[in-house]
Amino acid sequence: MVQVLTQYDTIAAIATPIGEGGISIIRVSGENALEIVNKIFRGANLNKVASHTIHYGHIIDYANKDVVDEVLVTVMLAPKTFTRENTVEVSCHGGLLVTQKILQLILDNGARMATPGEFTKRAFINGRIDLTQAESIMDIIEAKTDRARQVAMKQLEGGLLFEIRKLRQELLNTMAHEEVNIDYPEYDMDDVTSKEMYDKAQQVIKEIDKLLATAQEGKVVRSGLATAIVGRPNVGKSSLLNYLSKEEKAIVTNIAGTTRDTLEEYVSLKGILLKLIDTAGIRQTDDIVEKIGVERSKRAITESDLVLLLINSSEELTEEDQKLLELTQDKKRIVILNKADQVAKITKKDIQKITDSPIVTISVLKKQNMIGLEEAIKSLFLQGITDSKSEVMVTNQRQNDLLRKAKQSLIEAIEAINDNMPLDLVQIDLKEAWDSLGEITGDTAPDELITQLFSKFCLGK
Amino acid sequence: MVQVLTQYDTIAAIATPIGEGGISIIRVSGENALEIVNKIFRGANLNKVASHTIHYGHIIDYANKDVVDEVLVTVMLAPKTFTRENTVEVSCHGGLLVTQKILQLILDNGARMATPGEFTKRAFINGRIDLTQAESIMDIIEAKTDRARQVAMKQLEGGLLFEIRKLRQELLNTMAHEEVNIDYPEYDMDDVTSKEMYDKAQQVIKEIDKLLATAQEGKVVRSGLATAIVGRPNVGKSSLLNYLSKEEKAIVTNIAGTTRDTLEEYVSLKGILLKLIDTAGIRQTDDIVEKIGVERSKRAITESDLVLLLINSSEELTEEDQKLLELTQDKKRIVILNKADQVAKITKKDIQKITDSPIVTISVLKKQNMIGLEEAIKSLFLQGITDSKSEVMVTNQRQNDLLRKAKQSLIEAIEAINDNMPLDLVQIDLKEAWDSLGEITGDTAPDELITQLFSKFCLGK
Repeated sequence: MVQVLTQYDTIAAIATPIGEGGISIIRVSGENALEIVNKIFRGANLNKVASHTIHYGHIIDYANKDVVDEVLVTVMLAPKTFTRENTVEVSCHGGLLVTQKILQLILDNGARMATPGEFTKRAFINGRIDLTQAESIMDIIEAKTDRARQVAMKQLEGGLLFEIRKLRQELLNTMAHEEVNIDYPEYDMDDVTSKEMYDKAQQVIKEIDKLLATAQEGKVVRSGLATAIVGRPNVGKSSLLNYLSKEEKAIVTNIAGTTRDTLEEYVSLKGILLKLIDTAGIRQTDDIVEKIGVERSKRAITESDLVLLLINSSEELTEEDQKLLELTQDKKRIVILNKADQVAKITKKDIQKITDSPIVTISVLKKQNMIGLEEAIKSLFLQGITDSKSEVMVTNQRQNDLLRKAKQSLIEAIEAINDNMPLDLVQIDLKEAWDSLGEITGDTAPDELITQLFSKFCLGK
Repeated sequence: MVQVLTQYDTIAAIATPIGEGGISIIRVSGENALEIVNKIFRGANLNKVASHTIHYGHIIDYANKDVVDEVLVTVMLAPKTFTRENTVEVSCHGGLLVTQKILQLILDNGARMATPGEFTKRAFINGRIDLTQAESIMDIIEAKTDRARQVAMKQLEGGLLFEIRKLRQELLNTMAHEEVNIDYPEYDMDDVTSKEMYDKAQQVIKEIDKLLATAQEGKVVRSGLATAIVGRPNVGKSSLLNYLSKEEKAIVTNIAGTTRDTLEEYVSLKGILLKLIDTAGIRQTDDIVEKIGVERSKRAITESDLVLLLINSSEELTEEDQKLLELTQDKKRIVILNKADQVAKITKKDIQKITDSPIVTISVLKKQNMIGLEEAIKSLFLQGITDSKSEVMVTNQRQNDLLRKAKQSLIEAIEAINDNMPLDLVQIDLKEAWDSLGEITGDTAPDELITQLFSKFCLGK
């Protein structure tokens, strides 16, 4: 996709989180940003100020002779801005109504409401960042562990972009050699070229495999493990939940996101982010047998990456325990024998007869062996890579899918060479790998993909 | 209280609403603001840049060799800043973790965590604003109707301050004359002075009364009416609630405030803000007789400024209706005869025999006479003043109490004059009135009052 720096219409949105606070910011970007804000600003003439300066004044609704708010206005002229367009930021009092009102005035005076992620999209289209960097911006915003932020920051600085561009360049060089060969068949260097293509495909596959190897950790670091805590009533689910939420000094966030219907609860266990599923259900219903319902547990289990199945070791295994063991048998799970402070009626050995899943014996009440639980989670998901210092990582499904696609094209190229297929057919496979890699950075991404990608961003970013 | 511009330690806080968004801002104010941020900023040397300029760069955690975020840093030098101190604002990606991390780095490098309202407190102490203006800042942030914002903005521009200072000046002039009289008794102008004091006290009382007359409207405009919707089950409470929340195009906000435990729901009815009490209760329990509970209704009624008591006009008055009529008889209330679309078993006349409260016959289902309900609320609270154009208003209890106190001192002065008390005793009363008025603006406010006032502010403001 060849993009030229184009002038777009002027867009505006509230850039700060929605809520009440000291300051809110309305961001305006585009050719007419200055003119539009200038129409409602009483203070300096924004058309005449220097770039990257701040100006005190008031936003005025002239039609209604209404002084709307006391503000600071920041002027940043293209191209040294986030979007590479003229940008004005109005910093007003952080109230819902006043912020909305100023945004409305800006829209009334000629700006268009920005779509989610549109500022970042412009930064991409205007060539300031690639798609991996764009994605990393949302990752920084949503980061819930320091490691997640670090990996996202590395990506923003072009870590992944650099790796991908390097691979694309290597493929491009090889393809260029082959072009020479096709164009000047009299040289007849098919064997040499074929060898070069073969080696290059092998080498790039190796590099892609290195990146793919980071994907599991990348996913865990970025999004956390969707974790379902299941078990029959009174087995200690809500106590475990409370332990995870409160005992650990790590972050526990309840974010009522602007686009989400439900609260999400996260805990960080030894640096591993767990996104707890249906904790409200657990909190409300642990002691109410009839409300637990197999359906609800089933749903939580289906959505989870990790199941923590609690069993009361001080009582015989019940039919319900058996049922939950069955229901979760295909998931990554840890069987937790809780109430280890009481006389055991069920032991590790009993459970080992039923399943290969890791088993941990703990007492949530007495805080016995909670470290064993942490270790079990770690070794289940991050075997051998927990201490990796790598910060260039594949962090989302899109990147992962495209790397796999590129790898598949390279495998097909190798097979074609092995089958002595004509080299211009091999060339097509290489070109496909090159394209797939290009989709990761956005160099070759189709418009729909780009539209879809940015639509997941938050408004005002 | 005489204040000199003092150097304080440097304070920092997150100034934007808490949550996820495009941008968050960490505000730093104080003598060392520039030096502190400069220590963790890789970009321009902040100590050498011009005031009111913005600089691109990165926040670095040097101890951990960690690039924390890509940021814009705004430098504003004293005295042309919000606090009149050197101020730096770090504009970073709007994530909870990253914002918190940057704040922590700033604290680690020598700033102190700001207390709630401390930036505004410094603006007050450094003489940039008075207490009424400080209060208006929180009012702008919390404004939920345009009228509330306008009134707060007027107050921020010094509307109330001007009125109060004018009254204080008048009292001061009179007191000065009296001083002359006391100091030079040989002139013996007691009668003239006494007359002047009498007239002045009368005049200032009149002015204070004018301000006090705005207090009712001021409270409604600023805080809204705490409104309890009560009635026995199935009488249409949740339908009315839905009508108020959804049918009206006005604002409906559910704000999970940072310092509040519960959600608050507001609706704006013809510009009058209603703060609905215990709507969750209504939503959850309208059809569940056993859960309604008299206790819960009682609590809601106690907290309310306005009771909307719903009665099903298509059924005979029940014992429960009677009980609710009794419970609410001392409150400002509107009796709503709902289900007017059905055959009436209870009429307005039946209810008029029991109570003087306004009665409105409506059908929420068919949206019949909803305007009658709006009018009833208006006339109950804003009789004759709804269309007032006045924007200088007494908007909170503190201002109201101090005006009453000042008025009381002036009444005592007049009584003392009438009783032919010595003029230096009258002088004391005038001085007390002058002091009380000074407390409103903060000119004479004691430190504890100021501390308490700002503690109600949000963090970062």
